[in-house]
Amino acid sequence: MPLSDAPKVHPPEVMKKLVSLCKNRGFVFQSSEIYGGLKSAYDYGPLGAELKRNLMGEWWRDMVTTRENVVGIDASIIMHPNVWRASGHAAGFADPLVDCKVSKERFRADKAPRPAPGDPLPITCADKGVAKDWCDRIAKDFGVELERDGNVLNGLKCLSPTEFGFFPKGATAPTKTWPFRGYVGPTFGCPFLTDEKQFNLMFRTSLGPVDQMGDIAKVVGEITAAPDIVAAVRSQFGKACDEGPLAKAIESGDRTRIIRAVMEQLSSASLAYLRPETAQAMFVQFKNVMDSAGLKPPFGIAQMGKSFRNEVTVEHFIFRSCEFEQMEMEFFCEPGTQKEWMAFWKEARMAWWTRFANYPSDFKFRQHAKDEMAFYADDCYDVEYKYPWGWGELEGIASRTDYDLSQHEKHSGVTLQYVDQEKAGPDGKKPWKYKPFVIEPAAGATRALLCFLLDAYHEEERTTATGEKETRTVLKLHPRLAPIKCAVLPLVKKDGLPEKAREIIAALLKAGVNAKYDEKASIGKRYAKHDEIGTPWCITVDGDTLANGTVTLRDRDTTEQVKLPIAEVVAQIKARLEA
Amino acid sequence: MPLSDAPKVHPPEVMKKLVSLCKNRGFVFQSSEIYGGLKSAYDYGPLGAELKRNLMGEWWRDMVTTRENVVGIDASIIMHPNVWRASGHAAGFADPLVDCKVSKERFRADKAPRPAPGDPLPITCADKGVAKDWCDRIAKDFGVELERDGNVLNGLKCLSPTEFGFFPKGATAPTKTWPFRGYVGPTFGCPFLTDEKQFNLMFRTSLGPVDQMGDIAKVVGEITAAPDIVAAVRSQFGKACDEGPLAKAIESGDRTRIIRAVMEQLSSASLAYLRPETAQAMFVQFKNVMDSAGLKPPFGIAQMGKSFRNEVTVEHFIFRSCEFEQMEMEFFCEPGTQKEWMAFWKEARMAWWTRFANYPSDFKFRQHAKDEMAFYADDCYDVEYKYPWGWGELEGIASRTDYDLSQHEKHSGVTLQYVDQEKAGPDGKKPWKYKPFVIEPAAGATRALLCFLLDAYHEEERTTATGEKETRTVLKLHPRLAPIKCAVLPLVKKDGLPEKAREIIAALLKAGVNAKYDEKASIGKRYAKHDEIGTPWCITVDGDTLANGTVTLRDRDTTEQVKLPIAEVVAQIKARLEA
Repeated sequence: MPLSDAPKVHPPEVMKKLVSLCKNRGFVFQSSEIYGGLKSAYDYGPLGAELKRNLMGEWWRDMVTTRENVVGIDASIIMHPNVWRASGHAAGFADPLVDCKVSKERFRADKAPRPAPGDPLPITCADKGVAKDWCDRIAKDFGVELERDGNVLNGLKCLSPTEFGFFPKGATAPTKTWPFRGYVGPTFGCPFLTDEKQFNLMFRTSLGPVDQMGDIAKVVGEITAAPDIVAAVRSQFGKACDEGPLAKAIESGDRTRIIRAVMEQLSSASLAYLRPETAQAMFVQFKNVMDSAGLKPPFGIAQMGKSFRNEVTVEHFIFRSCEFEQMEMEFFCEPGTQKEWMAFWKEARMAWWTRFANYPSDFKFRQHAKDEMAFYADDCYDVEYKYPWGWGELEGIASRTDYDLSQHEKHSGVTLQYVDQEKAGPDGKKPWKYKPFVIEPAAGATRALLCFLLDAYHEEERTTATGEKETRTVLKLHPRLAPIKCAVLPLVKKDGLPEKAREIIAALLKAGVNAKYDEKASIGKRYAKHDEIGTPWCITVDGDTLANGTVTLRDRDTTEQVKLPIAEVVAQIKARLEA
Repeated sequence: MPLSDAPKVHPPEVMKKLVSLCKNRGFVFQSSEIYGGLKSAYDYGPLGAELKRNLMGEWWRDMVTTRENVVGIDASIIMHPNVWRASGHAAGFADPLVDCKVSKERFRADKAPRPAPGDPLPITCADKGVAKDWCDRIAKDFGVELERDGNVLNGLKCLSPTEFGFFPKGATAPTKTWPFRGYVGPTFGCPFLTDEKQFNLMFRTSLGPVDQMGDIAKVVGEITAAPDIVAAVRSQFGKACDEGPLAKAIESGDRTRIIRAVMEQLSSASLAYLRPETAQAMFVQFKNVMDSAGLKPPFGIAQMGKSFRNEVTVEHFIFRSCEFEQMEMEFFCEPGTQKEWMAFWKEARMAWWTRFANYPSDFKFRQHAKDEMAFYADDCYDVEYKYPWGWGELEGIASRTDYDLSQHEKHSGVTLQYVDQEKAGPDGKKPWKYKPFVIEPAAGATRALLCFLLDAYHEEERTTATGEKETRTVLKLHPRLAPIKCAVLPLVKKDGLPEKAREIIAALLKAGVNAKYDEKASIGKRYAKHDEIGTPWCITVDGDTLANGTVTLRDRDTTEQVKLPIAEVVAQIKARLEA
């Protein structure tokens, strides 16, 4: 049951508090923290690992186990490099990056601010000292004196999308003009930028026990020592020099380019990428899965697992990290039926997201505009969540036509189609051989985890028994997601109460309920801890348990307590979990 | 219940048959098969994905959920490179590799056959044509004529561990001698070998959106074009040239070595490795986990997940692959208690392995000899399984002392110890501050899957109702491992039977039992299919179901069928699963 139809009002500084709770309680730690940490990855602690298992388990149950026409797979992270050539990732999965020549800041050109003609271009620095340094460097590198006003450098103005000018104090016309890229660095506003470079976001690695750097160093050493580098390259690589990057590099005559092409050539034989998405495996194994499972469209192939992207910006805790987890499904249907299946999956997916939410109105669809979609896409919706910093993506549901199967068919030479013996195709003839169209609901598991933690995080003011005000922190996680379903707490560590509590634990575990024994600290502190980690129910074992066989069941959200015979505990908890 | 106390007698060519069943039925496919496949990795199809989930789920349930003093984590695959420097993997996780100069075969020097002085060194070739080619090449490269006897080249003899000689037909003394490495190529027996090279088995990658190859090409281009390469390197790298690999390379004066050191230097800032084991995360996050979960020794931290090793030899299907899955636990205990905990975990782990086995006597312990263990190890046992090719490792249970925590303490500068306020240490003073000793049961999940498939694979001769002999292929997987627990089969696709069958499915799924509807083909074929994929029970819905509410329950192993009221199906299946 949702808590409210209204959007959630987050407590102040909710992200900061949540990150701290996640570390202190063992949900999420920074990866390799004792070594200074990696910004790009996170480790899930005891509670986070359980939460993630539950969340991904619910997805699998809903998408695979309970559906007659969906099967799951679990494919390797390292796939053949041609998979990424076919999918377009090897060529296109890249962002144009630019460095600010002054601050060395690196940013994505396509996301940078674009001032309009007439706009001033003030460069903002961290402080006055930095502003002075910048002023000096700009004077030296660009031959212009900018005016300083504290930590802001003034005197630049956008003239047109391709030109800007220098306006000394009071000047109405520029005394000097420069070419302008149309955008400025996002943090400092600086227009003095390096050329754009394409960086592939895929992680490269090499497969097989080869000493690649040793081989490259040897060959590069030889060709650069030769009197004629081109002749040396030709003698080393023979026909490989007649086309492709080597040919182009030789033609350019550029030494750096030739060395680079040689390096790429030597590494290409063992080149491999870490998958940037789980989806391609469903296309690559389409035929094996369809044939072995005897499927006919409409059917789906689902997969959950890790993906890797060398993101330029990692941000908002686990929202965007380089190593992350996905839950994706490719639903293969008859051409022409994709609209109805899009409607079906939109409904099914939104039902799944909101089933676990306290504030369902924080979830919405956003349809992609035509120019936002890939050229082959038919239609696309994002499921968005209202994060504290604004609406952001949780899942994309895309109508991908038969583009992916066509690409893999083209690159692999293997026919990827379904032969429908019972139907006539558009030409009126049986059988109908077709490449199924695809609806792809692709969700981020790591993001899902963050969104449900945010949805669950509450601070509640209350008055204690002794009349004091205090704040109760409680994670109102859906019971099916909660890491621990039920804590069993002996009131004291003696009189046979621990033994009784452990009997109850054993019965709960046998019934498949993740229960935890806890005897540390006062009962109030134990309740407070289990509120904070989202345990929906606490069972307290006390004197009454020994006297008349009853325990106290406390509800996390209402804090209400009811007495219950021991014999009913398992059935009550199971019933609540399945509600 | 085990099928037999005796070892399993595998059907002939069991590996070949199992690999084929795995592909045809959707357990395991070769990764990227349509692109020619990657030898190093496998994809798990619909049934394999479920089998793996069940297997790893059972490990987690036994090792984490049901144990009060063990918690789970789920850490990132890419960890800080210093983790691997501390663990010794970056330096030591390498094998000496050698290429045969004649056949180009690459192999591990430390595993190669070592002939004794006096032994002949016959080089065995695939066929006579190959033998001739080799003979010619040896004559050309080494200036000696070997005698050919069919596809064997004779006339070489081991003289001492460091020398071998050439004996023309009938000669009692060598006419020529050569230096000998002490070992020969494992496949062809050839002693003409390249130098040993160290290859790190870890997969390298680089973190962050940097165009590493471009940067390297630029710098290498510059230093190799400079009149004095050393001066150019010094001017580029400054103080970094005063120590470490750059200093050594400069000192050597070797051009290739300098280029290589420059390449390593430029890539070091973004260098990262894929983890070669899951275990290190438990040491690196030891303090975070202990503090957040309020643990005190003895306690364990467990993790399951992917690991990556650039294996020289991938072999025996999924037994050894480059991308594989592990199930590891580090159990932290008081120094001095490691022997009793080793005994405890040996028993617990063997109980787990044999719980799911039809032939428990195919599992045994093998204690490591002193010279087999790492220098810091106290004791080590392998759990081995009797694969069709012989006994091989499934799990290692190692007593690792406090070596790992000490190493990470040294390299990170962070104190990794437990402070026991209640106990006095060896010096008689409270509190006792100590680094816990570690017992590590580390199992291969991918190998576990192969071993249980082998244990389950049976071919049974039987006589059909019509008197014909036929072979029944049946996977006798433990019901808790079986991908599908229960198939529900309407006898015919009409008369309301499918609807009735789907009602039963719904009830089973609600109870958490993975059931599948199947209406394709004759009932006999459906039974045969479910035998082959290891489904323990089939429920058949027929005329009686409509008439008097009973279904037929068929047992996979005995093929016995019993009638059962619909109302009892869920309880019966649940009871059998929990037996």
